[in-house]
Amino acid sequence: MLPSYKLINQNSWTRRQLLVRGVTVLGASALGTAIALQNNRSLAAVKIPPIKETTSTSNLGFNPMSVLRDFDYGKVKRENGRTIREFEVTANSSPIQLNSAISFVSWSLNNRVPGPTFRAKEGEIIRVIFHNEDGSSHSIHFHGVHRSEMDGIEPIRRGETTVYEFEAKPYGVHPYHCHVAPITRHISKGLYGLLIVDPPQGRPPADEMVLVMSGYDLDDNEQNELYAFNGIPNFYRDNPIAIYQNQLIRIYLLNMIEFDPAITFHIHANMFQVYRTGRTLKPCEESDVITLGTAERHIIEFTYTYPGRYMFHPHQDYIAENGCMGWFEVISS
Amino acid sequence: MLPSYKLINQNSWTRRQLLVRGVTVLGASALGTAIALQNNRSLAAVKIPPIKETTSTSNLGFNPMSVLRDFDYGKVKRENGRTIREFEVTANSSPIQLNSAISFVSWSLNNRVPGPTFRAKEGEIIRVIFHNEDGSSHSIHFHGVHRSEMDGIEPIRRGETTVYEFEAKPYGVHPYHCHVAPITRHISKGLYGLLIVDPPQGRPPADEMVLVMSGYDLDDNEQNELYAFNGIPNFYRDNPIAIYQNQLIRIYLLNMIEFDPAITFHIHANMFQVYRTGRTLKPCEESDVITLGTAERHIIEFTYTYPGRYMFHPHQDYIAENGCMGWFEVISS
Amino acid sequence: MLPSYKLINQNSWTRRQLLVRGVTVLGASALGTAIALQNNRSLAAVKIPPIKETTSTSNLGFNPMSVLRDFDYGKVKRENGRTIREFEVTANSSPIQLNSAISFVSWSLNNRVPGPTFRAKEGEIIRVIFHNEDGSSHSIHFHGVHRSEMDGIEPIRRGETTVYEFEAKPYGVHPYHCHVAPITRHISKGLYGLLIVDPPQGRPPADEMVLVMSGYDLDDNEQNELYAFNGIPNFYRDNPIAIYQNQLIRIYLLNMIEFDPAITFHIHANMFQVYRTGRTLKPCEESDVITLGTAERHIIEFTYTYPGRYMFHPHQDYIAENGCMGWFEVISS
Repeated sequence: MLPSYKLINQNSWTRRQLLVRGVTVLGASALGTAIALQNNRSLAAVKIPPIKETTSTSNLGFNPMSVLRDFDYGKVKRENGRTIREFEVTANSSPIQLNSAISFVSWSLNNRVPGPTFRAKEGEIIRVIFHNEDGSSHSIHFHGVHRSEMDGIEPIRRGETTVYEFEAKPYGVHPYHCHVAPITRHISKGLYGLLIVDPPQGRPPADEMVLVMSGYDLDDNEQNELYAFNGIPNFYRDNPIAIYQNQLIRIYLLNMIEFDPAITFHIHANMFQVYRTGRTLKPCEESDVITLGTAERHIIEFTYTYPGRYMFHPHQDYIAENGCMGWFEVISS
Repeated sequence: MLPSYKLINQNSWTRRQLLVRGVTVLGASALGTAIALQNNRSLAAVKIPPIKETTSTSNLGFNPMSVLRDFDYGKVKRENGRTIREFEVTANSSPIQLNSAISFVSWSLNNRVPGPTFRAKEGEIIRVIFHNEDGSSHSIHFHGVHRSEMDGIEPIRRGETTVYEFEAKPYGVHPYHCHVAPITRHISKGLYGLLIVDPPQGRPPADEMVLVMSGYDLDDNEQNELYAFNGIPNFYRDNPIAIYQNQLIRIYLLNMIEFDPAITFHIHANMFQVYRTGRTLKPCEESDVITLGTAERHIIEFTYTYPGRYMFHPHQDYIAENGCMGWFEVISS
Repeated sequence: MLPSYKLINQNSWTRRQLLVRGVTVLGASALGTAIALQNNRSLAAVKIPPIKETTSTSNLGFNPMSVLRDFDYGKVKRENGRTIREFEVTANSSPIQLNSAISFVSWSLNNRVPGPTFRAKEGEIIRVIFHNEDGSSHSIHFHGVHRSEMDGIEPIRRGETTVYEFEAKPYGVHPYHCHVAPITRHISKGLYGLLIVDPPQGRPPADEMVLVMSGYDLDDNEQNELYAFNGIPNFYRDNPIAIYQNQLIRIYLLNMIEFDPAITFHIHANMFQVYRTGRTLKPCEESDVITLGTAERHIIEFTYTYPGRYMFHPHQDYIAENGCMGWFEVISS
C-alpha cells in the first residue's frame, strides 16, 4: 500500500527540481527571485502521472517505482562562498527478493540497488559521507574529474566512515561504484549508482527518470542468471511506468552489468535522442537501439504521441527474457 | 541456371527505384513528369553490373544474390489523398541449405531469410498484410514510430491473417522481426528483415544493397554455430558481389544475430561513411570497422577506386570463419 | 637495468617527431628551414618525463615502456618527387614472459607484441619490406585504403620476403595484422600493430603514446585467460606511466583482442576526448568509458590537472583483473 505516494513523491520531486536549478523553495533562497520564477514556469510544464499502487514491495527491500524518479539533492550548505551538497550513504548487506523463489544477499547502498541517485549542478561541491556498516571492506569510486585522493579506490573497513569531496564536474552522467577487489563481485552484488551533474543552464523541462541495468550472478559462475532495471527483475513488466502522452521523457540510462561484454537498450514504437555520457546539450544521434559497454551511460530523450503500452528492454532478447524488461504506459494528456 | 537473371533484375530494380521516388512508370504516374525526368537523370548515373551465374541455389531455398538488391516497394494505392504501399508477407517453415551438410528448418517470411526488404518514402502509409501459414504463432514487430495497436507483439495464430498499418516514419533503416516468446528462438530461426524509409528528398544515386547478418543456433544451445550475410553462410565468399569501380555503394546493414552480444563489420582496403540508423543525410563518422549490437543497423557508403577483389566480414574472426564472409569484385568502369 | 634510457628515448623521440613533420634533423633536410623551426617551436612545448628503471624486462622479450612511445618513421627516401618511408619487419616466433609462471610462444613482428608502430604523413608512400622467418606462413594486412594486390591476404611462406607498398591514406589510425587462416590464431598469437597516418597539418603538440589491448588464449579453447596493454599483462600496473600534469596526452588506442566480442576502455578521475578511428581533427565525443569491437581504434586525448596515480583499464573488470590494467603517474610540472 502506497496511500499518499503520489503527493509525497510529487512534492519531493518538485522541490528537488527547483533545488537543482539553484533555488531552495523551502528554507529561503540564496539566489534571485527572477531565476526562481523562471524555473517555476518551466516546471509548471512537467506533470508526473499519479503513481498507482504497485505489486507488493514489502519483501523486495525497496520500491523500484520510487527509485525511478528519486533524485537525491543532498543537504545544501554554503561554505566559503560555495554551495556544498552533502550526501550520506551507508553500505550494508541486505536481502532483495529477485523473484518469488530467489532472495539475494546484496551489498547495497542505503538499502537499495542501485544506490541513491546523487544530483548536483556543475561547479557545486559534492561531499559524500560514506559509512561502511557491512562486514566487508568497500569504497565509492566516482567517475568524473577529481583529485587522486578522492578516487575512492582505497578500501574502507567495516565500521569506518570516510568523506569523498570534489567539485561536481563536468556536467554529465557519472556512475559510481565500489572499487574494492574483486571488483566484479563488489559491483555485481549491488554497490553502484549514478551521480547526475546538471549543466549550469539546466536542461529543458521533462519527466526525468533513472534506469540502471543490473545483472545478478546467483551461483558465482561469472555469468548472470537474472537481469533487472532498477534492481528488481521484471518489476516494470509487472508495474508499467506511467508517463504522459506528448510530454518529453528524459532517461538517465546506465549499464552496470558485469560479465556481459555489452548491452543494448531498445524502446518500442518510438525513436530516442542520445546525449552521449550526458556530455552534450544537443543530441548526438537518434535510434531505437543503442549499445552500452559496462559503465557506459547516456541521456536518452523521447516523447510518445500515441497512448498505449510500449515495451523497453535490451534487444539481446535472452537478457530481456531473464528480467530486464519493462513497459511504459502512455496516458492521454 | 539463371539465364535471364540480369535483365529481369535490372528492369525490376529500375522500376522500383523510380517507384520509391514517388513515380509509377508502368501504370501511369500520379505525380508530375518533371520529377520523373529529374529522377531519371539521377538514376542514369547508377549502373548495376551484370549478375553472373551463381553456384546452384536450387536447394538453398532462395538466392542471396537476388536478396541483395531486391527492394519491395509494395502495391501502390491512393486512398483519401495519401499514398499507400501494400505488402503481402507469409510466415512459414522452410528448409534452407546452410552448407553441403546442413539443412536448417527456418521460420521464414516469403520463403527467405532475411524476409523481404520493404521500402517506402517518409510520410507514406505502409500496410502489411501478414499471413501466418506456419504451425506456430508468429507476429511482425516493426521498429520505427507507430501506435501501440500496430506494435506487432500480439501472436497471430496459424492460419490467421492480420494487417499492420502505420505511417512510414521517421526516415531511416528499421528492422522488423517476430515478437512471439521465446523471442530469441523466433528471431534466430529467421523471422526478420528490413524496412527502409527513404527521406523525402531521397539520397544521392548509388548502387544500393542490403546486408543482413544472421546467426544460426543449430543445436539449441543458445550459441551460434554458423553465421551468414543474407541467409546463406559463405554465399558471397563463393559468389563475389560485383560492383563498379568509382561508383558509390550504399549498404543497408543490419545485425540480427542473437546470442552474440555485439558484432563488428569490416571492409578491406577502404573506409566507409556511417549514417547511424539511417537517421541522417550527412555521415556521422568514417571507419572500416564498426560495432553493432543486436538490431542495430546503419547505412554505410563507400567507393572503391581500384579494381580487384576485397573481403568484407565481421572483424571477430571466428564469426567470419564460420560463414559471415564475402567479397566485393570491383570491376573497371 | 636501463641506465641511459631516458636520454636515448628522448633523443630518439625528438628526432622522430621532427621526421614525421617532414624534416630530417640529422642527415640534412630535404625540406625548408622555416618548417623545421616552426615544428621545433611546437615540440618545445612537449616534455616527456624521465623514464624510471622498470621491473626487469630481460626475460619478457621486449620492454613495454619502450613500446609505449616508440614510433617507427622508417627510412626516408625520395623517389620520383615523392617521399617514401621504408620499413623493415620480420615475423618470427619468440617467447614472451606473460607473468612469473607463464612463458608464451608468440608469433611476433620485430620480436615484440604489438609489432612496430609505423608512422607516416598522409600522401607519403609506405613501403614495408616483410620477411617471414617463422616456421608458418604469415602476411601483413593493413587497414586503410590501397589496391587489392597490396591487401596482404596472400600467405608469405617461411624464408620469403615480400614488399607492401601503398600511399598513406587517409590520415587516421589503422591497425595491421596477419591475415592467414585461421586468422583468430594468427592474430591472438601476436601478429598485429598500428600504422598511424598523420594529417598534413599535424595535430597539436602532445605527449603521444600507443596502447594496444591484447588477449592471450593460453590453452587454445577460444577464450582468453590473460590480457595486456602493449603485450605484457600488468606491466603498467607494476610500472606506472609517468606523465606531466597539465600536459595534453594523446593515446593511439587499439583493441586487438580476439574472442571477446567488445572491450571497454576507462580512465580514472578524468574525461577523454574521442577522435573516432583518428579520422577527425575535432573530437567526436567525450566520456571516460568507450566500447571498442575487435580492430576498432581511436585517438583519445586528456589532460590531468591534479598530480597523483590514476588507473586505466577496461571497465569489464574481469579483463582488468586478468592483466589489462595500468596506472598513470601524474607528475607536477
